[in-house]
Amino acid sequence: MSSSSLTPIPNLPESSHPKVVIIGAGFAGLKLARKLKGKPFQVILLDKNNFHQFQPLFYQVATAGLEPSAISFPLRKIFHHSKNVIFRMAEVSSVDTKAKRLFTDIGYVDYDYLVLAMGGDTNYFGSKNIEQFAAPMKTVSEALYIRNKIISNYERAINIEKVENRKHLMNVVIVGGGPTGVELAGAMAELRNTVLPKDYPELSFDNMKVVLIEGGPELLGPMSPEAKSHALKYLQDLGVEVMLNARVKDYDGQIVTLDGDVFLETQTLLWAAGIKPNRIEGLSDAQYSRNGRILVDEFSQIIDCKDIFALGDISLLTEENYPKGHPQVAQVALQQAENLAKNFEHILKGRPMQPFHYKDLGSMATVGKKLAVVDLPFIKFQGLLAWLTWLFVHLMAILGVKNRLFVFFNWSWNYLSFDPSLRLLIKPRYVREAERKELIEQK
Amino acid sequence: MSSSSLTPIPNLPESSHPKVVIIGAGFAGLKLARKLKGKPFQVILLDKNNFHQFQPLFYQVATAGLEPSAISFPLRKIFHHSKNVIFRMAEVSSVDTKAKRLFTDIGYVDYDYLVLAMGGDTNYFGSKNIEQFAAPMKTVSEALYIRNKIISNYERAINIEKVENRKHLMNVVIVGGGPTGVELAGAMAELRNTVLPKDYPELSFDNMKVVLIEGGPELLGPMSPEAKSHALKYLQDLGVEVMLNARVKDYDGQIVTLDGDVFLETQTLLWAAGIKPNRIEGLSDAQYSRNGRILVDEFSQIIDCKDIFALGDISLLTEENYPKGHPQVAQVALQQAENLAKNFEHILKGRPMQPFHYKDLGSMATVGKKLAVVDLPFIKFQGLLAWLTWLFVHLMAILGVKNRLFVFFNWSWNYLSFDPSLRLLIKPRYVREAERKELIEQK
Repeated sequence: MSSSSLTPIPNLPESSHPKVVIIGAGFAGLKLARKLKGKPFQVILLDKNNFHQFQPLFYQVATAGLEPSAISFPLRKIFHHSKNVIFRMAEVSSVDTKAKRLFTDIGYVDYDYLVLAMGGDTNYFGSKNIEQFAAPMKTVSEALYIRNKIISNYERAINIEKVENRKHLMNVVIVGGGPTGVELAGAMAELRNTVLPKDYPELSFDNMKVVLIEGGPELLGPMSPEAKSHALKYLQDLGVEVMLNARVKDYDGQIVTLDGDVFLETQTLLWAAGIKPNRIEGLSDAQYSRNGRILVDEFSQIIDCKDIFALGDISLLTEENYPKGHPQVAQVALQQAENLAKNFEHILKGRPMQPFHYKDLGSMATVGKKLAVVDLPFIKFQGLLAWLTWLFVHLMAILGVKNRLFVFFNWSWNYLSFDPSLRLLIKPRYVREAERKELIEQK
Repeated sequence: MSSSSLTPIPNLPESSHPKVVIIGAGFAGLKLARKLKGKPFQVILLDKNNFHQFQPLFYQVATAGLEPSAISFPLRKIFHHSKNVIFRMAEVSSVDTKAKRLFTDIGYVDYDYLVLAMGGDTNYFGSKNIEQFAAPMKTVSEALYIRNKIISNYERAINIEKVENRKHLMNVVIVGGGPTGVELAGAMAELRNTVLPKDYPELSFDNMKVVLIEGGPELLGPMSPEAKSHALKYLQDLGVEVMLNARVKDYDGQIVTLDGDVFLETQTLLWAAGIKPNRIEGLSDAQYSRNGRILVDEFSQIIDCKDIFALGDISLLTEENYPKGHPQVAQVALQQAENLAKNFEHILKGRPMQPFHYKDLGSMATVGKKLAVVDLPFIKFQGLLAWLTWLFVHLMAILGVKNRLFVFFNWSWNYLSFDPSLRLLIKPRYVREAERKELIEQK
């Protein structure tokens, strides 16, 4: 614990209201903070970043379709007019549940209620090699890194004479057949089919493979059979090689080894296969499930600590229809946050809290810039109309008028022109120099 | 010299046309390459980056007004439909003027004509301390670094209890009273007056100084007296402290020392005070001027090498009205490139080359989002109309329809809302972790 953890976070305004400390400004944390705006609570929102990240569109940042700023929202701006919500950029270290004190790298803070909403990080299922060499996509900067890596690889490939020596730079392998993997694969295949051949006329793109690997027998696990089969067909039409029932055993940065000793040559292994809940020191093992999620009751309260709540990907609540817990998706996080915001008001008024029940509003995934699959509770459909639905739902979900207009404008242009102009390798000089050195040594 | 310099650059298409190699895709290099599109030359354009940078708007990236992508243009996209122009991302090492061979980190290339258009880098006038601690702004990534540095400093200031201990994080000192310095100072003062107090209600911005330091007796050296006095007044109205006849002696990352032992406390010293031409190995000392520019004749040819040309900031041509050479500005670079493009056609047709004469079209600088100063050959004006003129000229200068629309849209919004939403600290995790460590140690 650093010395700064031993002094209180400075400059917090005085308040006579109960203090709600929220860790994490993802879907759950941000929604809760917004719902508590203007209510008689002092809300302290903590996040490692000074912005909210709109995760469903990371794949567009990775494939040069959107700028990071189009899907990242400065938290201070969101709370300009909310005096009772205070944001601090901080990294949390531990909690003392008896003293009701949270320790961070900028000091400690005492809470009346603590809300854990730190989400998850990439899960490599214990493989150190994959962790070292694969590219994850759980933050907007990781998505940006993927974009830079892909473009750098092409700038390198063009300087290699023999076609067979370029393969590892050109191929892209994506692991994980959930919405993220499917969307990444579709967008990568579209880049290959449209923009890249124009950018690199010297290279032959027949040699570039886009491979999507899924451990199970189907893509988009929890969706309807119609959605699954259409998504598979759409991907195959775009030229994606889909490998089902396939498992990655190892990766050395150049060769992916699959079960059954199948080998794929690539420098670009994108890992969208798993999520590992973030942890905080100070809770007991009994408060976690076996897969690391924090066990909560129907009020989102954690075991043995009535003043600590957990929301979103990090939490685990079993309901009748969800014996293994809810899926780790935005909808659950948002609904939990709304329920908790109401329950805070019930607590204040001495009324009983209302239990949380998940209402599945449906799910969707997009394949490329024209097609999608949509499962709603009452209807399932696929194709262009599904894509328009997907577009509408995601635009509406993005907060803030400015950015909504921006994203829409950017996207429309992108779609019409099929030629995003975000293929920029912007990085600090020392990074560029280190990379060029590596490039030269490898030659 | 690395081993890759000893093999030719691979995969260059065969061509029977004369080969023009251009180093640098700044204003001069890009203009020349575009003018030679479709002409009977094979043009090989080399740059360290895969994009052209629109330097006049770097200050807007630094002050969170524009995204890097709004003023950076992927070179491959610009030349999609020009078969005779080939782009390569490369770092040039040296030239063998006798063998007519250029060496780079991706191989060598033999030229018929070589065009040096590598521009300049920041000039610290020999001060190692300033070079180490000050922030330059000669690339879009350096501008982005400034933005990140300023926002990080505020996120740190908010965690410091005593007002006097925050000063070094809040103050911004800018060195150089040319257009870049003036524009940076104006934009910084506007941030302080509008957005920052809303973002950080806990901090008092009366304590934040924006200081502009100029070594000479006036701002905007070569402009008209009217422009100079208006710019000074506009800056002072915005609350910028302008120090004329002031020289920076030293800087340790916290304290700026000026001549006469004046001290300014700041972590943010922005250096817009000088430019140092880039060099290439293989030329003789006699080919350079004393300040490092490459001496050229009226055909942009360098001394003793009729097949090597130099354009833009890197070159030095004296004319009757410009005994010390032309100013290092975009207009000169663009006009030189147009002249050379025509001369290449003259060479091809066996006609004599035409000498270059600079036609001063005027100059301008903006102060904040509503005011500017404009000197045209026939008229001088200042204020809102000047700002609209500045806006129009810069928008027209930016290439590519998409980005022009984008910049316009972004800018208009920005202007109307006075609240850019680009205040995002997006950086790789390891950078963030290193910085947080430093933060904690400093506390």
